[in-house]
Amino acid sequence: MPNDRLDERSKGVFIISVTPFHEDGRLDLESLDAVLDFYIGQGVHGITLLGMMGEANKLTDEESAAVVHRGLARVAGRVPVVVGAGNPSLEAMRRLVRVALDGGAAGIMVAPAIGLRTDDQVLAWTGQVCDALGPDVPLVWQDYPPTTGVYLSASLFSRIVHGSPQVVMLKAEDNPGLNKITAIRAAEAEGQRRVAIVVGNGGLFLPQALARGADGIMTGFGFPRMLVEVFDRHTKGDADGAEDAYDRYLPLVTYEQQPGFGLAVRKEILRRHGALRSAAVRTPGPRLSAADRAELDRLLARLESRLAP
Amino acid sequence: MPNDRLDERSKGVFIISVTPFHEDGRLDLESLDAVLDFYIGQGVHGITLLGMMGEANKLTDEESAAVVHRGLARVAGRVPVVVGAGNPSLEAMRRLVRVALDGGAAGIMVAPAIGLRTDDQVLAWTGQVCDALGPDVPLVWQDYPPTTGVYLSASLFSRIVHGSPQVVMLKAEDNPGLNKITAIRAAEAEGQRRVAIVVGNGGLFLPQALARGADGIMTGFGFPRMLVEVFDRHTKGDADGAEDAYDRYLPLVTYEQQPGFGLAVRKEILRRHGALRSAAVRTPGPRLSAADRAELDRLLARLESRLAP
Amino acid sequence: MPNDRLDERSKGVFIISVTPFHEDGRLDLESLDAVLDFYIGQGVHGITLLGMMGEANKLTDEESAAVVHRGLARVAGRVPVVVGAGNPSLEAMRRLVRVALDGGAAGIMVAPAIGLRTDDQVLAWTGQVCDALGPDVPLVWQDYPPTTGVYLSASLFSRIVHGSPQVVMLKAEDNPGLNKITAIRAAEAEGQRRVAIVVGNGGLFLPQALARGADGIMTGFGFPRMLVEVFDRHTKGDADGAEDAYDRYLPLVTYEQQPGFGLAVRKEILRRHGALRSAAVRTPGPRLSAADRAELDRLLARLESRLAP
Amino acid sequence: MPNDRLDERSKGVFIISVTPFHEDGRLDLESLDAVLDFYIGQGVHGITLLGMMGEANKLTDEESAAVVHRGLARVAGRVPVVVGAGNPSLEAMRRLVRVALDGGAAGIMVAPAIGLRTDDQVLAWTGQVCDALGPDVPLVWQDYPPTTGVYLSASLFSRIVHGSPQVVMLKAEDNPGLNKITAIRAAEAEGQRRVAIVVGNGGLFLPQALARGADGIMTGFGFPRMLVEVFDRHTKGDADGAEDAYDRYLPLVTYEQQPGFGLAVRKEILRRHGALRSAAVRTPGPRLSAADRAELDRLLARLESRLAP
Repeated sequence: MPNDRLDERSKGVFIISVTPFHEDGRLDLESLDAVLDFYIGQGVHGITLLGMMGEANKLTDEESAAVVHRGLARVAGRVPVVVGAGNPSLEAMRRLVRVALDGGAAGIMVAPAIGLRTDDQVLAWTGQVCDALGPDVPLVWQDYPPTTGVYLSASLFSRIVHGSPQVVMLKAEDNPGLNKITAIRAAEAEGQRRVAIVVGNGGLFLPQALARGADGIMTGFGFPRMLVEVFDRHTKGDADGAEDAYDRYLPLVTYEQQPGFGLAVRKEILRRHGALRSAAVRTPGPRLSAADRAELDRLLARLESRLAP
Repeated sequence: MPNDRLDERSKGVFIISVTPFHEDGRLDLESLDAVLDFYIGQGVHGITLLGMMGEANKLTDEESAAVVHRGLARVAGRVPVVVGAGNPSLEAMRRLVRVALDGGAAGIMVAPAIGLRTDDQVLAWTGQVCDALGPDVPLVWQDYPPTTGVYLSASLFSRIVHGSPQVVMLKAEDNPGLNKITAIRAAEAEGQRRVAIVVGNGGLFLPQALARGADGIMTGFGFPRMLVEVFDRHTKGDADGAEDAYDRYLPLVTYEQQPGFGLAVRKEILRRHGALRSAAVRTPGPRLSAADRAELDRLLARLESRLAP
Repeated sequence: MPNDRLDERSKGVFIISVTPFHEDGRLDLESLDAVLDFYIGQGVHGITLLGMMGEANKLTDEESAAVVHRGLARVAGRVPVVVGAGNPSLEAMRRLVRVALDGGAAGIMVAPAIGLRTDDQVLAWTGQVCDALGPDVPLVWQDYPPTTGVYLSASLFSRIVHGSPQVVMLKAEDNPGLNKITAIRAAEAEGQRRVAIVVGNGGLFLPQALARGADGIMTGFGFPRMLVEVFDRHTKGDADGAEDAYDRYLPLVTYEQQPGFGLAVRKEILRRHGALRSAAVRTPGPRLSAADRAELDRLLARLESRLAP
Repeated sequence: MPNDRLDERSKGVFIISVTPFHEDGRLDLESLDAVLDFYIGQGVHGITLLGMMGEANKLTDEESAAVVHRGLARVAGRVPVVVGAGNPSLEAMRRLVRVALDGGAAGIMVAPAIGLRTDDQVLAWTGQVCDALGPDVPLVWQDYPPTTGVYLSASLFSRIVHGSPQVVMLKAEDNPGLNKITAIRAAEAEGQRRVAIVVGNGGLFLPQALARGADGIMTGFGFPRMLVEVFDRHTKGDADGAEDAYDRYLPLVTYEQQPGFGLAVRKEILRRHGALRSAAVRTPGPRLSAADRAELDRLLARLESRLAP
């Protein structure tokens, strides 16, 4: 059953859905249906709603709930759905989590609050979130310092794993971060409770991360099928084939990974796929210039020739 | 009419209201009534709801609207009310502003979004906020780098004043910040549009700021009457009397200004005044230890002897 | 012997010396002699050279060595001297420490390097510093997040105390920071190795810190005698007399504590005391405007009347 | 004459030299000779000593001078040499610049000081540096926010270009940063003084940057010949050939661009080329683990097969 709860054995490609808007900035729930269908058609193993790249922080509470409600209904159990619920307000977080779980979400993702500094503060905050949500909610802990300013060592993660059994997955997006995966897997070999590890960063270093023991990836990217292919080939033992597939898309991976700006690229690619009506990013947010579009045209044309038989 | 709109001639003491919670973290709207009455009884010239020290970011959108609705009804035009509406979501901001203006708010306060870096980015964001809210909404621009990480030079503020006529007040809380007040007043002497300037930081440097040309203060503090006395004496030309009043409370001003922690002190003082049922700060937030309480007891006892005739 | 090495029983007022410059920015070693004599004449129990407020990072390696050499010669064992040696280059640190110890310094102060994030990184860096300097060098660990961006929990400090026996003193300047002092003293009551704790921040919260168990203060301030009086009265059990002395100077304490800017105030006060020929802060650095000078005149005149019998 | 001064028409590949150390952390000047010869053998058009990735901040002033002296002597005018001289101490900067110019350096590179916030502060600091160095020193202004925390808009750069004629080159490493290049070139088309623009970031987005009007690149990378090939092909109008060359190395470009960590990779690659005796990064700094080495082996083997005819 794909909509079972997330656990420490979960794996695969969880695509982070964009949140579609009309050109005038209104939420476009019809396009949400379309883009979710597109993702599933690309073979992803799971979907994440309201990730950071889903412009979650530009939505009202009501809009967030609408996205979760509509998205879960559309996916309808075809793949498990994770809902990003990070919020400086634990009360807002709690209410959104209720909507998510009632709708059949497989798990909840949170990133540490901006302003947490010491290991002890991060640990205390994690405990407060667990208390607020209750012990039955499977949690994905997002390690993404560029936005949060919060840094996670492998030893702090050990304390979290020990203290919060409901943390079942780490979204590992620190950079550099490959040795952290190795360190966590080493701690598990010494008896630490296993957690699933998925990486992110738009796909960057996916082959290396899988070789280090990652269970998959949770990220946005304009060509989800590549992520699926890399994961599948790696799983079947074809590491070189996996890496070949990755390398062919690497110019697009890096281009889409431009901080902040990359989301506009991603939405434009999805629009060109026919998965979005509008590539609009909600204000405040980036817009593509003519030079950007020409650059993207060129990158896509070169991709096409690389993919040609 | 005290509930007229804020403009560039507004002045006085705008107290930033705490947001009361029950011990279990639920919003306590009855105590909101009580604390607003307390503030007005202290002689303040205005009130600000949902400032940063009002724990605004820990409320759901619905709770924020409830605080604004209830607060405006309770104040009932006795003094002008400013509503803090800063939010990474312009849509959430717009909705709250609608509630505020419908309820009779005198103006709206916003702080620049976390992550803005260059002068041009700050200016563009200010324009986006003005566009989102419409030209009729009087705005207070909050300059508070410790939380926002956004820095404002006097020359950038000139560009804002020029480009956004609805910015009628600067909440000046940079530290050091006294020379910025002097620089803005000097620019106005050269023809720049006048704005009201209120300072903050719990009262710190209030006498100096008034001497530099500030029009008042917008801040929280456990003893609002002191702020009123300093302002009134200063206005009447009694600079020394103003500063004497300030100096007597300075140990409490600095104690309440401990970053983050000070809010727990402030709420405890308000509780002791009888203005709050509970001093609870919503999670995540500081709690007073036994050592803190003993320290506060001592500071308050010493204050009392300084005030004794 | 006052120039004995610093240890975990060290206490009192360690004044952080300014570094004097000529108006044109050249180092003024003659004025260093004068200001050191002034400090000792004020009754301080120790002196710190090349603290952050000593503009250490604006000196060349050669100038730093000259300040240490000259300063130690002038103090000549009258009081113990601590030398600030923080430097991103461990090799530069090691060389300066050699100059300091050869000249009779009592200890070395370091602040964690900018860019350290997790507890483990801070611990590892502390170990690297200890390795670089050798086990015989008594270390003061400076906890000053506003400049370093590094945050220290009481539990991380326990790990440092356990792992680095040569760390004999904590310069505790986090804000809020009073509960950290209480927590460290509590851990010591449970058996943790004792360290000396001195606070800083220009004197802010000194009475509270002493009551919490601090052993003294290491800071700059334009009126060192006040710090000595507070410490001495507190030590003799006259807590109220100590706090009265503190309160009289509090307007100056806060004024001098304006981040970055306050150093120009402090140097101007020392110039007025006759302890410096020039109040120049080396470029880049703050300069007092006419408005600043008038403000300072007023604050000093008010101080004088408070001190008048 | 290759050792002519840098000017606004300078272009090509300026490789940022690593600074070699012995295994025990001592500076290895003999290896500096070797690695400089290696770079020149790779066809680079210029060399930069003491860039950020040259571990400049871990050297003493004396060691920095030694690197500059030795490096300039070895290069001996074969290609122009830029010297990184960024330092919180303007006096230390001035002394190193004297060594550099006396030895025949073509220009000096500085990055804005950590802690600068507003456009006005950045502009003022740039003026102070120009004053300190004198008007005859050609300057490269390094725009690298991940380390400096300072952000540069195209409009601020216009003010710098106008106010500081000796700024002849921008090292453009903001990310995203491509539209900034376009904006500066557009301003120049409107009459703004031209500056040379070189990009960095280990080569990332080099084809795009050249198409946007960059004049070259100044960066470190383990395979400098690729950068030269991309530049040369682009210059000859073979944009596709340039991008093909780039794409083949992209997995290594991204791998070496891991923040902080990548320097250890780069030094290991240079060691494997025979250009360094030891890959040691000075403490504090990254070390490659066994897993890292295996990963690098694999990436290099895959590169080799891509390059095979």
